[in-house]
Amino acid sequence: MADRLEDFQKFRTDLNEEILGCGHLGINRFFALDHQAYEPGPLGTKNKELLGVVASAVLRCDDCFTYHLVRGGEEGWKREELIDALNVALIVGGSTTIPHGRRAFDRLRDIGGLQP
Amino acid sequence: MADRLEDFQKFRTDLNEEILGCGHLGINRFFALDHQAYEPGPLGTKNKELLGVVASAVLRCDDCFTYHLVRGGEEGWKREELIDALNVALIVGGSTTIPHGRRAFDRLRDIGGLQP
Amino acid sequence: MADRLEDFQKFRTDLNEEILGCGHLGINRFFALDHQAYEPGPLGTKNKELLGVVASAVLRCDDCFTYHLVRGGEEGWKREELIDALNVALIVGGSTTIPHGRRAFDRLRDIGGLQP
Amino acid sequence: MADRLEDFQKFRTDLNEEILGCGHLGINRFFALDHQAYEPGPLGTKNKELLGVVASAVLRCDDCFTYHLVRGGEEGWKREELIDALNVALIVGGSTTIPHGRRAFDRLRDIGGLQP
Amino acid sequence: MADRLEDFQKFRTDLNEEILGCGHLGINRFFALDHQAYEPGPLGTKNKELLGVVASAVLRCDDCFTYHLVRGGEEGWKREELIDALNVALIVGGSTTIPHGRRAFDRLRDIGGLQP
Amino acid sequence: MADRLEDFQKFRTDLNEEILGCGHLGINRFFALDHQAYEPGPLGTKNKELLGVVASAVLRCDDCFTYHLVRGGEEGWKREELIDALNVALIVGGSTTIPHGRRAFDRLRDIGGLQP
Repeated sequence: MADRLEDFQKFRTDLNEEILGCGHLGINRFFALDHQAYEPGPLGTKNKELLGVVASAVLRCDDCFTYHLVRGGEEGWKREELIDALNVALIVGGSTTIPHGRRAFDRLRDIGGLQP
Repeated sequence: MADRLEDFQKFRTDLNEEILGCGHLGINRFFALDHQAYEPGPLGTKNKELLGVVASAVLRCDDCFTYHLVRGGEEGWKREELIDALNVALIVGGSTTIPHGRRAFDRLRDIGGLQP
Repeated sequence: MADRLEDFQKFRTDLNEEILGCGHLGINRFFALDHQAYEPGPLGTKNKELLGVVASAVLRCDDCFTYHLVRGGEEGWKREELIDALNVALIVGGSTTIPHGRRAFDRLRDIGGLQP
Repeated sequence: MADRLEDFQKFRTDLNEEILGCGHLGINRFFALDHQAYEPGPLGTKNKELLGVVASAVLRCDDCFTYHLVRGGEEGWKREELIDALNVALIVGGSTTIPHGRRAFDRLRDIGGLQP
Repeated sequence: MADRLEDFQKFRTDLNEEILGCGHLGINRFFALDHQAYEPGPLGTKNKELLGVVASAVLRCDDCFTYHLVRGGEEGWKREELIDALNVALIVGGSTTIPHGRRAFDRLRDIGGLQP
Repeated sequence: MADRLEDFQKFRTDLNEEILGCGHLGINRFFALDHQAYEPGPLGTKNKELLGVVASAVLRCDDCFTYHLVRGGEEGWKREELIDALNVALIVGGSTTIPHGRRAFDRLRDIGGLQP
């Protein structure tokens, strides 16, 4: 249903490079801030990526969702922790988040550490 | 700017009671599920309330925001942990979340454990 | 918590008049189309106002919500029909719609035919 | 432009099964509530599915939209009733709902009872 | 990643024709108003299309985005003007607009006057 | 209906100061980027503030709306230019933006250069 994960990642990398190559200082700084927001601080990265995945789910952004799932897999989430977070997103955001949840579960087959 | 916290809480309690008193089984069950979603499971309540506060911020729901701030105060959040979570919400949701952040900071003056 | 219903209605009437008095043809035509959308057609007005109230709830627009509640009261909704519609909105839109539902229930005290 | 209807339905069924198979009680209960919300009550199923389709349109959720179109076809909507409901969604949600409307009309070619 | 621009445009044209052919007066009038909103008035078309592209970006509507990019190319936007507008959208709407920005930059390769 | 403009501005200034005083580097940098996004570049400030007001309208953020109206008054918008921009927002965002438009028109009585 979705593009393959590696296609998503190649498109994401290529276009981010093109956007950053445009030379708009404001955009470049925003991308840097976005990256820094998930670095360890008073909260750790693992927890912040959970915040990112729930925000992506309630805002219904599939690409953001995929990105944070991959990052969460790298940060050592357990599958049942992720699913418990998705339940919070489902309650807050309602049934309109379900199609995004389906695509997220489909992605999980390809994400190390989060497979069924 | 906002109603006083105790007024918010009285209105919330009174109207929830009225809604639950209507006898619509679906609504009553949803309210129960909503409550249960933040109980300890694979993730703890403290973390789930952080998910709730970030979801409230990016969806720009002041009342949800207030509710989760109060709950987070009860669960022992540190002020700097909350602020680090709000930074994630700000990056994900952009400047349109700022007015809600201002009202949230205003609320924090009244929430034990999260005051400046 | 909310302004009194008659204050809401006076503000709505006065400002609509001011907006329509600006002489922007596109805006005036949109307001006319908006009015016509709820007139009887293949669906009746009573049903269309139910569509309006659910759309207002999931988009979380308190003023739209109030307006359609008043119209629904005029069109002869039964209170339990409205509550059954709000349950659909709650499921679709999730807990972030609840604060709007509380304010709507508060409004219902003032709306003939929909009181508890 | 869109996946074929049967592909959508297979993906939906398969992934719902996987989600429900995860054993998260909160998620399973939400799915049950979601199903029950459209069963006959003070409002009938035919009308509730119209509420669902308008909510899907203003929230701009293509998969929710498709699901409710299929259900509406089963419940005996007339094509002109659906179109009259979509007009309400268009007025409430504005031109940003139009791309979803186009995809919905495309789907209607495959939905018994709602074809042109 | 996205459909080819000419496929998008053919689908858009064909389905708009089908929608307008349904004979719903309200829908037909809305489409006319939508068209007229970007015609010259106190603001010129070039500026109004910039408003359209930023509204599309913050509402995260890829098809609206593509449409306004094409129109902006026809109206003589410079690439750096568009990018400066997208920076406003990025700040207002946050990182959740970035996937839409990536798809927009991908589209720009095919839009005369806005290519890199 | 709304707070007085000077109350809004005092609250905004005071709370922004408190937020910036928290010492979270990411938040402080975001506020700086937000400010810079409207400074002259390939597009001028007057046009960028129009983008900001339309984005605020379609995202239905009253405080953002008020802020950009004040800035637009300072930048020399004509009232009819603003109204023409609001018509674009109304078409894109639909009738759910109207309550925000009413509050905006109410604000305009207090904003130099944009009064009726």
